[in-house]
Amino acid sequence: MKTKAIFYHAGCPVCVAAEQNVANALDPSRFEVEHVHLGQNKARVAEAEKAGVKSVPALVLGGQAYHINFGAGIEALR
Amino acid sequence: MKTKAIFYHAGCPVCVAAEQNVANALDPSRFEVEHVHLGQNKARVAEAEKAGVKSVPALVLGGQAYHINFGAGIEALR
Repeated sequence: MKTKAIFYHAGCPVCVAAEQNVANALDPSRFEVEHVHLGQNKARVAEAEKAGVKSVPALVLGGQAYHINFGAGIEALR
Repeated sequence: MKTKAIFYHAGCPVCVAAEQNVANALDPSRFEVEHVHLGQNKARVAEAEKAGVKSVPALVLGGQAYHINFGAGIEALR
């Protein structure tokens, strides 16, 4: 069974770079990656914050949040 | 041909988590990941800084530095 990973972003340049180079680099045989644009999907901001996301872009993997560089603070997306 | 990725770390807990969950999650069919412990290999700190690494853990991929959460500043490792 594949591990679920969620890549949270806001379409910013830093987000796009992280998406193309890190999120898309994950092994597709082991991970199923969902991409969530929090700017367009504000209903999921609370879920991201609950997972520990403080800024985007961030990858939530195995229940842990991994912030990749810094594009925008989560508070700017609420 | 595989893309070379370098994961720079310093053995810190934040580094180990990022290594196990992000660096080791990269697709092995597309990426060859080198793991460099900067605390034990100070000769490579300059190379990491040249690649844009400001803190560890960081993944350098396609010539770009992706800082994953924050373990320690690079200046503490010189």
